[in-house]
Amino acid sequence: MFEREKIFNRIIQRVNINLRDLNFDVSPFVTGHADLRQMSRFYAFYGVTTDIPLNLQFIHSSLAGSYFLGKCQVKNAMLYKTDIRGDELKRKGSTFQFKNFSIDLRQDEFIDIVSSALVKTLVHNFSHDPESPERFFIKNTLSLDYANIHGAPADGCFLSPFATVDLTTMRNCAIGAYSYIQAGRISHLNVQPGTIWVNSPGTFNFLYQFPQDRLQHYIKQEAGGKPEGALIDFIEKRAQAFDKVFDTAITSPPIPVPETASLDRYAVVLSETTIDENVLVAQRAYLENCTMGIGANAQENCYIINSNLQGNNVMAHGAKVVETEMEKNIFVGFNSFLVGKPGCRITIGTGCIVMPHTIIDCSEPLEIPPDTLLWGLITNKQELEENSIPLEELRVVHHSIQRGNMHFEGEGGAFVEGFKHRINHILESNGAFYHQHNNNIKGHAQNNRKLSLNNIQPYLFGEMEGVYPDITIQPQG
Amino acid sequence: MFEREKIFNRIIQRVNINLRDLNFDVSPFVTGHADLRQMSRFYAFYGVTTDIPLNLQFIHSSLAGSYFLGKCQVKNAMLYKTDIRGDELKRKGSTFQFKNFSIDLRQDEFIDIVSSALVKTLVHNFSHDPESPERFFIKNTLSLDYANIHGAPADGCFLSPFATVDLTTMRNCAIGAYSYIQAGRISHLNVQPGTIWVNSPGTFNFLYQFPQDRLQHYIKQEAGGKPEGALIDFIEKRAQAFDKVFDTAITSPPIPVPETASLDRYAVVLSETTIDENVLVAQRAYLENCTMGIGANAQENCYIINSNLQGNNVMAHGAKVVETEMEKNIFVGFNSFLVGKPGCRITIGTGCIVMPHTIIDCSEPLEIPPDTLLWGLITNKQELEENSIPLEELRVVHHSIQRGNMHFEGEGGAFVEGFKHRINHILESNGAFYHQHNNNIKGHAQNNRKLSLNNIQPYLFGEMEGVYPDITIQPQG
Repeated sequence: MFEREKIFNRIIQRVNINLRDLNFDVSPFVTGHADLRQMSRFYAFYGVTTDIPLNLQFIHSSLAGSYFLGKCQVKNAMLYKTDIRGDELKRKGSTFQFKNFSIDLRQDEFIDIVSSALVKTLVHNFSHDPESPERFFIKNTLSLDYANIHGAPADGCFLSPFATVDLTTMRNCAIGAYSYIQAGRISHLNVQPGTIWVNSPGTFNFLYQFPQDRLQHYIKQEAGGKPEGALIDFIEKRAQAFDKVFDTAITSPPIPVPETASLDRYAVVLSETTIDENVLVAQRAYLENCTMGIGANAQENCYIINSNLQGNNVMAHGAKVVETEMEKNIFVGFNSFLVGKPGCRITIGTGCIVMPHTIIDCSEPLEIPPDTLLWGLITNKQELEENSIPLEELRVVHHSIQRGNMHFEGEGGAFVEGFKHRINHILESNGAFYHQHNNNIKGHAQNNRKLSLNNIQPYLFGEMEGVYPDITIQPQG
Repeated sequence: MFEREKIFNRIIQRVNINLRDLNFDVSPFVTGHADLRQMSRFYAFYGVTTDIPLNLQFIHSSLAGSYFLGKCQVKNAMLYKTDIRGDELKRKGSTFQFKNFSIDLRQDEFIDIVSSALVKTLVHNFSHDPESPERFFIKNTLSLDYANIHGAPADGCFLSPFATVDLTTMRNCAIGAYSYIQAGRISHLNVQPGTIWVNSPGTFNFLYQFPQDRLQHYIKQEAGGKPEGALIDFIEKRAQAFDKVFDTAITSPPIPVPETASLDRYAVVLSETTIDENVLVAQRAYLENCTMGIGANAQENCYIINSNLQGNNVMAHGAKVVETEMEKNIFVGFNSFLVGKPGCRITIGTGCIVMPHTIIDCSEPLEIPPDTLLWGLITNKQELEENSIPLEELRVVHHSIQRGNMHFEGEGGAFVEGFKHRINHILESNGAFYHQHNNNIKGHAQNNRKLSLNNIQPYLFGEMEGVYPDITIQPQG
């Protein structure tokens, strides 16, 4: 048996032990799914800058197409086409504020990945867990295609395709396909596919459930099968364009990039695309015939096609936007899938918030008024009505409100303000405001320019084929 | 000032301090020569196998296009397009035999490079220094284009372009362009360009001196200038073909390669080239319209063009062979430049030994009889006569012999046998005999197949531009 298979089987067993109380067996979802032979096809890479302390360690591990920017440890682990950023790890000597607690950090925060398999997965490290401020753990966790562990330490979990867990520490949970969970802390939950849940206990609770039958058109993962649906087709159709950028060792930008913007060397840029000041285009983003206005960003795994972004637009990880006009200051949440068509374009007004995991798939032109919150599945004007609310209307909710499959309770104002505050933080940390209004704070757009990227290749033959060398890469003392 | 310039200037100073007794100033030879801006254009790489212990450490260093295969340390150093192999480093627990001394090794041998600049340089690590069996040092040493430090620990030395020091520990020496020195130990020598010297004190001494005026046509390095001449032109004309292989991250072999042979992914292969069993083609080798017979090898920086190698031919580092027919068991030494022309081809008989740094540049067809030793500069039949000797004739020399610019004294038999023995060792360690005559010992040809190669990129902007990160890469405990 190949070493890579031993590693994978051990991970499956560890996850099943953790999920025994839920009576959940991950085997049928992963058997025949993760093609381990792929492991030897790719190289892994990690970013090096003079700003961020690096400390990579791999033990009996396997990883491919990864992306490390900060301290990291990996043990008995597999990663595959994984983005793991460490650029927002907390530093030694800093103070982490959590509600009333001022927590002093006595060492640099590090990412720790043990007995985990993360397939085509993104891990973002701005963790908010006050119980483990110095260690971002992802122990005994298995996550499938395009799942997103965003500032969310995980232990003993299973994430289905396109699942996102955001700013939430999770233990022993199974998260269904295309579910979005932002709930601070969860444990022993088996979350159904298409659950959109934002919970701030005591303040507000937002819950939307996708209709299961209609969600399956977009993403379906059945026991014994591979993930399928329109989302998978959309990505696979464009996979070849990425082969080209990954097969090249040294690249120069295909289009002009202003001094204050950055275009990752592993992003795809096709036909008439323009990039303005303070724009951030992250790795594995795909831009085709679009304009990126000042301060717009396209984060990891975003697709922006035949669309115009006027500026300060946040396209969160995995957002897909086709045939869409975007005015300014619009937020499009993780894995949203906005597919207009020629003649049926989507127009989104200034200040709109598209909730994570929103699908707009219209066969008529749709115009979304400014300052609107959108969620769920929208395929026509009637569903737009049902799955949206003006921010001003939500702001004055104090008890609860129900629209279609969405139920909200608590303080609408706190929900809106929290969102606005976070969007502002994202824009600022991405460098969208640099050199505007006397702002001299650099963000990712300015700092990621010309990042140095080192590659690691797995063993190419023998029983270690597809497994990476056991090495430590760390700064010189 | 850029950090890379500070590093370089410090190295120049250190070398000058070491060479003060020779009254030698390296500055005019390197000023305006090494284009430090190039440092940010390239990545470095190191090989990883399950066979060879790895331990890379870089401190305030800079390196590009390198090639590490075993333990290594680098401090305050610059390397550039450097090949440093560590595949023959001696192992802990083994015994190193030097004449009557059996030296037990109490730790793995490692390569140590301190305050050094090696530009387009090859360092091969099979060291024979009994005084330092566990540490291969290259301290305060500056070596220029295509110089070759072959199993030759160096301290405080300056090597001009195409200089080779072979199996010789050197201290505080300046080695002239295209000189070849194999002398066990040397110190405080200023070696003139084109000196071919093989000395085994008490046994034999071979000395040839290239005519200075004619050597300058091939390689010239004047104070204040860049190296120039036919050798430089030859390489620069073909440089672009290498850009293509280095610009590609993932490659598949351009021609079929037998299971027992290896073609390095950083070699160039053009038009009608064939590779037979047990052939080794090392990195930065260039093959164009040639046949590589069973067990033939093309080592680092070799060029083989419009030529046929019948088998078990050794093309040592930097050998260049054009329009040449080679029978079996021929040795072509380092940096030899054999340029036949269409209609004026060179034919070399079985068992010939072409001394390192031999130039054959003929305008008439040349046929070299089997078992002949050749050296020096040969441009016609008369010079062939003057610069060659049948091995049988040399074998019976017991005192001395003079031919043209060549002087030999001592035991001709010991010289020939020593050479034959070494050629046999090279063929065996390169895997030329694998699966022949019940030989099951694998060599480089079999072991280097599908070597995993990891890349390191320098910082791309700021004052650290072109300098590599201070990192340690070592196996996991």
